[in-house]
Amino acid sequence: MVVIIGGGFGGLSAAKRFRGKDVQVILIDRSNHHLFQPLLYQVATAGLSPADIAQPIRAILRDQENVRVVLDEVREIRLDTREVITPDLTFRYNHLIVAAGARHHYFGHDDWEPLAPGLKSLEDVLELRRRILLAFEVAEKARTDEERHSAMTFVVVGAGPTGVEMAGAISELARFSLRRDFRCIDPADSQVILVEAGPRVLPTFSAETSTSALRQLQHLKVEVRLNSTVTRLAEGEVDIDNQVIPTRTVIWAAGNAASPLAGMLGTGTDRQGRTLVNPDLTIPGHPEIQAIGDMAATTFNGGEPVPGVSPAAMQAGSHAADNILRQIRGENPKPWHYFDKGSMATIGRNAAVAEIGKLRFGGILAWLAWVFIHLIFLVGFRNRSAVFLQWIWAYFTFSKGARLINSRIDKWGVLDEKNLQPPADPPPDSES
Amino acid sequence: MVVIIGGGFGGLSAAKRFRGKDVQVILIDRSNHHLFQPLLYQVATAGLSPADIAQPIRAILRDQENVRVVLDEVREIRLDTREVITPDLTFRYNHLIVAAGARHHYFGHDDWEPLAPGLKSLEDVLELRRRILLAFEVAEKARTDEERHSAMTFVVVGAGPTGVEMAGAISELARFSLRRDFRCIDPADSQVILVEAGPRVLPTFSAETSTSALRQLQHLKVEVRLNSTVTRLAEGEVDIDNQVIPTRTVIWAAGNAASPLAGMLGTGTDRQGRTLVNPDLTIPGHPEIQAIGDMAATTFNGGEPVPGVSPAAMQAGSHAADNILRQIRGENPKPWHYFDKGSMATIGRNAAVAEIGKLRFGGILAWLAWVFIHLIFLVGFRNRSAVFLQWIWAYFTFSKGARLINSRIDKWGVLDEKNLQPPADPPPDSES
Repeated sequence: MVVIIGGGFGGLSAAKRFRGKDVQVILIDRSNHHLFQPLLYQVATAGLSPADIAQPIRAILRDQENVRVVLDEVREIRLDTREVITPDLTFRYNHLIVAAGARHHYFGHDDWEPLAPGLKSLEDVLELRRRILLAFEVAEKARTDEERHSAMTFVVVGAGPTGVEMAGAISELARFSLRRDFRCIDPADSQVILVEAGPRVLPTFSAETSTSALRQLQHLKVEVRLNSTVTRLAEGEVDIDNQVIPTRTVIWAAGNAASPLAGMLGTGTDRQGRTLVNPDLTIPGHPEIQAIGDMAATTFNGGEPVPGVSPAAMQAGSHAADNILRQIRGENPKPWHYFDKGSMATIGRNAAVAEIGKLRFGGILAWLAWVFIHLIFLVGFRNRSAVFLQWIWAYFTFSKGARLINSRIDKWGVLDEKNLQPPADPPPDSES
Repeated sequence: MVVIIGGGFGGLSAAKRFRGKDVQVILIDRSNHHLFQPLLYQVATAGLSPADIAQPIRAILRDQENVRVVLDEVREIRLDTREVITPDLTFRYNHLIVAAGARHHYFGHDDWEPLAPGLKSLEDVLELRRRILLAFEVAEKARTDEERHSAMTFVVVGAGPTGVEMAGAISELARFSLRRDFRCIDPADSQVILVEAGPRVLPTFSAETSTSALRQLQHLKVEVRLNSTVTRLAEGEVDIDNQVIPTRTVIWAAGNAASPLAGMLGTGTDRQGRTLVNPDLTIPGHPEIQAIGDMAATTFNGGEPVPGVSPAAMQAGSHAADNILRQIRGENPKPWHYFDKGSMATIGRNAAVAEIGKLRFGGILAWLAWVFIHLIFLVGFRNRSAVFLQWIWAYFTFSKGARLINSRIDKWGVLDEKNLQPPADPPPDSES
């Protein structure tokens, strides 16, 4: 019996590898859908709907009769009895693949999460979408310049691919998609600030690519602050290097922390809480357990850390499955070698950067490559076609289709109480 | 200055009627989107995504420079000073159109709402979708037959169009879309019970149509209980005529109650809390105020109540706007006459009923008519095309694309705590 924890890119690739094999597989995930995380920022900025980038795990594995999908939350892994414990059930395994991924990391400021959500789950990005769209609504009915200005200021923390993509997408949303929607404000006046602790954007890319990305961000009027850190976060304001910036909307794209399950495997973990694994992805002393994806610390090119990207997770997933098939045949697991297909980040319409081997390019060419590759990899025909349709449409019209504010509302829909102060004496923009 | 409260079919039609006219219009809605309510049940059953049936009101009215859209919640209407009060702002009007719609009504059992959500807002149906999909997940990992059976029992209260559509859609979801997704249960074993207090389904349709609808529902294995009422609702069970039925999922499609704003207009209200209006839609004693749509009690054919359907709201909206233009020209408002274009209800794939004048038909013809008309009326090109694409796809594959459980989860995604009981001694379906 093979148990796989996690239905992300790693766990799913492993499960698929067992297709047609004489192995019983149980895949446990706490959410019912596989998420195409690279496009989460598109949901946060109303470009795509949740269903466009998510597929029920069951539907993906429907025809693989030897796989059973369980919607549940793993609370404990018992190495000695080889049991995976959920609040509902206990699963005994002969082989275990742990692919539980990572969440964002607030560097010891966990209290910052509600103030500055990240982008890992659909719930995360729907909340971000709500905040971003609501900010413009608040600005439209603001009664003071301060209120209006803080509502139209967006701060993105962390200039890795996610941060760069968010900053660019928010700027485009304001400058193009919302352009003519308001009467009291011009969304193009919005200020998007991208904060990066390091000396350049996209630190994992080449210096040359960073420069190109920086230029493209500035072209989109994104204010990039390098060598800067968030020193304080509070309701309605953020301190960047101790300078107070009033803002309603702070987005966290700064750090990753591996799933707590990584700590239950008895091996050491690295600074990001990732499990230290053998070259063959097994856990020291436990050849029946393998850890893969964002929660495992792996290296390539003799020492370089394997990046937390979907191709890496997918390669490791297939390899882990093959290792188990080897073990069942009585062979030994083989070491895993990550094949770097290159990396890319998109900044906006016609704006992106790409590095494939020695090849480096930016602008529309990189953007087209990015669109093409992401469409190819999107899971499921329907999604691909629907997404493609929307992108074509959005490209020519700048329209963003999914501009919905799903507010948590009471029976009569009181919205986001925080922003609903009783009016002072007749406000300036009331009709008198 | 014209103020319109509500961006539904009524309010939106009124606002559009002012296009190009020398009138300043403020449209206030507590949600940022216009909702195509007739298709809400499709979101609840994962057939469509929220963005497919909702459009930002701003986007719809973008080009109408004389309309300002405000996202806010009206708390009070001051007839004497002609002011509309929101927590943020005060708007003074010369003419007011109140089109705030209705919520569902629990006949004095408001405590039932959390136990049996209805279908009025996106929030409502996303919660329903979550419950319906989660029910199958709970059944799949159930440890007792009781648990499994109650998870696979769905009770829909009220056999008006919405209830009939929900019952049919859930049955199809179980029998076709989810068919091969599970390993421990056969979703086709699900039981869908439709409870109706009256002697027949679709009470507002002809007896002949009711019979046809009943036959089509039974063909879909929906258990219809006529002349039955819900006598008690509790966590995990519902009493129908004092018979206890264990179920996790109860859906409320039984009654409507007008927005509380209807009570602030100084006129009487009917049993459903709707404002009593003059034949010209104005409020007795207040020719500058008109009430329309689901929150106004209007009649046609000398006495018949105008049904709470979108065509009625749209007709009344345009008429109310015309009345205001008349008043501005110094003329008197004209009485409103509802033109009944007929009505239809869909039961499932190829299954529907329609009544257009004397014409009555059912089955695939009615279903095709229903699909066609709803596509035509869907707001916005992008939606129409995306929805059309999905329906074609869903029709031939029975797949439901939007099967996402957006659970309210904590940082580590603990899901729907209620259902996560600690396991007893090693459960039957654990691997031992």
